[in-house]
Amino acid sequence: MKWITLLTDFGERDGYPAAMKGAIWQVAPDAQIVDITHEVAPQDVLEAMLTLSRVYPCYPKGTVHVAVVDPGVGTLRRPLALMAGEAYFVGPDNGIFTLPIRQAQQAEQTRLKIVVLDQPAFWRSPVSPTFHGRDLFAPAAAHLANGVPLETLGTPISDPVLLDLPAVEVLDDGWRGQVIHIDRFGNLATSIRAEMLSGVPAVEVAFQDEVIFGLCRTYGEAPPGALLALIDSAGFLSIAIRNGSAAQRFGACLGAPVEVYPVHPRPL
Amino acid sequence: MKWITLLTDFGERDGYPAAMKGAIWQVAPDAQIVDITHEVAPQDVLEAMLTLSRVYPCYPKGTVHVAVVDPGVGTLRRPLALMAGEAYFVGPDNGIFTLPIRQAQQAEQTRLKIVVLDQPAFWRSPVSPTFHGRDLFAPAAAHLANGVPLETLGTPISDPVLLDLPAVEVLDDGWRGQVIHIDRFGNLATSIRAEMLSGVPAVEVAFQDEVIFGLCRTYGEAPPGALLALIDSAGFLSIAIRNGSAAQRFGACLGAPVEVYPVHPRPL
Amino acid sequence: MKWITLLTDFGERDGYPAAMKGAIWQVAPDAQIVDITHEVAPQDVLEAMLTLSRVYPCYPKGTVHVAVVDPGVGTLRRPLALMAGEAYFVGPDNGIFTLPIRQAQQAEQTRLKIVVLDQPAFWRSPVSPTFHGRDLFAPAAAHLANGVPLETLGTPISDPVLLDLPAVEVLDDGWRGQVIHIDRFGNLATSIRAEMLSGVPAVEVAFQDEVIFGLCRTYGEAPPGALLALIDSAGFLSIAIRNGSAAQRFGACLGAPVEVYPVHPRPL
Repeated sequence: MKWITLLTDFGERDGYPAAMKGAIWQVAPDAQIVDITHEVAPQDVLEAMLTLSRVYPCYPKGTVHVAVVDPGVGTLRRPLALMAGEAYFVGPDNGIFTLPIRQAQQAEQTRLKIVVLDQPAFWRSPVSPTFHGRDLFAPAAAHLANGVPLETLGTPISDPVLLDLPAVEVLDDGWRGQVIHIDRFGNLATSIRAEMLSGVPAVEVAFQDEVIFGLCRTYGEAPPGALLALIDSAGFLSIAIRNGSAAQRFGACLGAPVEVYPVHPRPL
Repeated sequence: MKWITLLTDFGERDGYPAAMKGAIWQVAPDAQIVDITHEVAPQDVLEAMLTLSRVYPCYPKGTVHVAVVDPGVGTLRRPLALMAGEAYFVGPDNGIFTLPIRQAQQAEQTRLKIVVLDQPAFWRSPVSPTFHGRDLFAPAAAHLANGVPLETLGTPISDPVLLDLPAVEVLDDGWRGQVIHIDRFGNLATSIRAEMLSGVPAVEVAFQDEVIFGLCRTYGEAPPGALLALIDSAGFLSIAIRNGSAAQRFGACLGAPVEVYPVHPRPL
Repeated sequence: MKWITLLTDFGERDGYPAAMKGAIWQVAPDAQIVDITHEVAPQDVLEAMLTLSRVYPCYPKGTVHVAVVDPGVGTLRRPLALMAGEAYFVGPDNGIFTLPIRQAQQAEQTRLKIVVLDQPAFWRSPVSPTFHGRDLFAPAAAHLANGVPLETLGTPISDPVLLDLPAVEVLDDGWRGQVIHIDRFGNLATSIRAEMLSGVPAVEVAFQDEVIFGLCRTYGEAPPGALLALIDSAGFLSIAIRNGSAAQRFGACLGAPVEVYPVHPRPL
């Protein structure tokens, strides 16, 4: 069984993701295709990168992840396929795969191979200059699922476009990150990762005019309506309201600063 | 072939349902996974219960239904798996499975077994305290699909949380129910079931300032724009407007009262 | 492997598409089911027809396409199954299959067979008069996927309902079409097809108060924010704004006229 995941900003209404699936099955009839999402904000490569990085580690080895948020479709931006560790990725060279590439670069023994999809024999024909998702990326993913070696699909490169990840600034007495994702429940995920706080006995989280003392383990530990902070299921510090929406309370705030300070037991 | 259905309030945009699917396939690579919906109103256990009950009877025997609308995630609320009749259900102990449990309790010969998922060997590791859908319920469903006996996954209980279903009041001369569901077409499903009206030759339906005489078999029997009542495909009395939206005409009205009166032929 | 696609106006929230899938798998457990979309505007048969026609040519031979946008459900409108070329289609007789039927009629050697689904042995029982998608069309599609011959499912007819396609008017010096589809990116697809412009060296496109000189190959050829025209991935002339929304700029405009004029090189 070979899995292929799809992540795009196409929406479902117009049928574009279904067209990609048909194009995959014409090459790889046994592929198991699954949608990550098609609701990424139009042309928001950063949102796509973050959503992909929350999901792909849950998939079996050898899964092929196709991500198409592609403002540069049909221009000179390169179409890529790559292997990073145990997973394959297919999509445009615009930084959408920054996280798996960085992780592979940082882990010495992790395999990283990247090719430009320049072999027309593996494209759907003719290629529409506005729908590489269907005509170029879908067939490439299908061939990978069929066992075609990555090297056969294109020419190796070593200079993929990488995005700057939302920064975390080290302060004298803590860290300053920012809101990087707002989910359906209105929870605000920040760029501050759990690892940064390891060894810190307790924290205060400052956001807009509020200070939150301590981290909860889960939403249900706070009283209904209360503001709380916790480490979310992807490992990021997150600000939430129990049974409510932090996004609604604070307004739309992607990019808004969030500060975290270690708290030390005071002398009596 | 083993089917696993998913019903949550996660939405699709953030990729959470896709993470659950990856977690399932890592345990049960051959499972056929299908979405019931991920668009339940956030934390609306009653909507989830009603939607599940419309869909699960359509599935083959042995299907595993995972339903995660879970305001109490990570707290002491119990995680459950259960067998009711020919179907399995996996999710939080908050009443979301009230209908299949009640039906099994009422049918003497129907098998009903419920366990608390307290065997860490069958969890994903580590378990996030905020995402039991991925780390606890998805793997449990996958093990059931693999044929692991229900009893192996946890400890039997007999006191699941059950919700009060929306009531139907018996009046001197009829019944008073309420609107329990509004679908995409603006049709208003009520708590009055077809069985209650069997043997009644004709009815009047009173809703807000309107009285509807008689039931249609289908929407198309009424003239365009007309108000009508019928028994919907799930067996509930429903109020609709032909080629229009009853929800729009009457305003948002979940819980609004609806009365039904039998009509007897008048003496001449 | 047999594919069955689903296209409806049911939305996903209420679980109706999942009910159809269960009904299919009870008859054809090995069917591979895929959603084209369930977000067609309620009862918009024309949108359904156009979306279907963009997607079905991408699917493998023998795929069964179920399309249920069905304002006449339960009335005398006929339920159909048909074979057109290499594909099967199942749904109401209201013009939703106009494009594959017309294409088959125009291509002499293309096979076209249409039957009315009048054989109760192949229905789900009992049939709800409001949900033929689940009780009539889903089982018919499943039987076709199982290899049951089309003729076994019903009685042949030769007078299917056909819709008038959005017209293109031939002007003295060009063509006048109309906007027929607005996608998630706000691109405006028109009824003017690429074939009509073949052999024309260059064009001007007139829309509302704007004139667009020439066609781009792809969105990225225009500067950010610029208005452009191109042939879209389904072969229609389309009006777009690079990294923006033409629908937003021009307002909702389904049906709005678009004119195209050939441009000839001027003598110096």
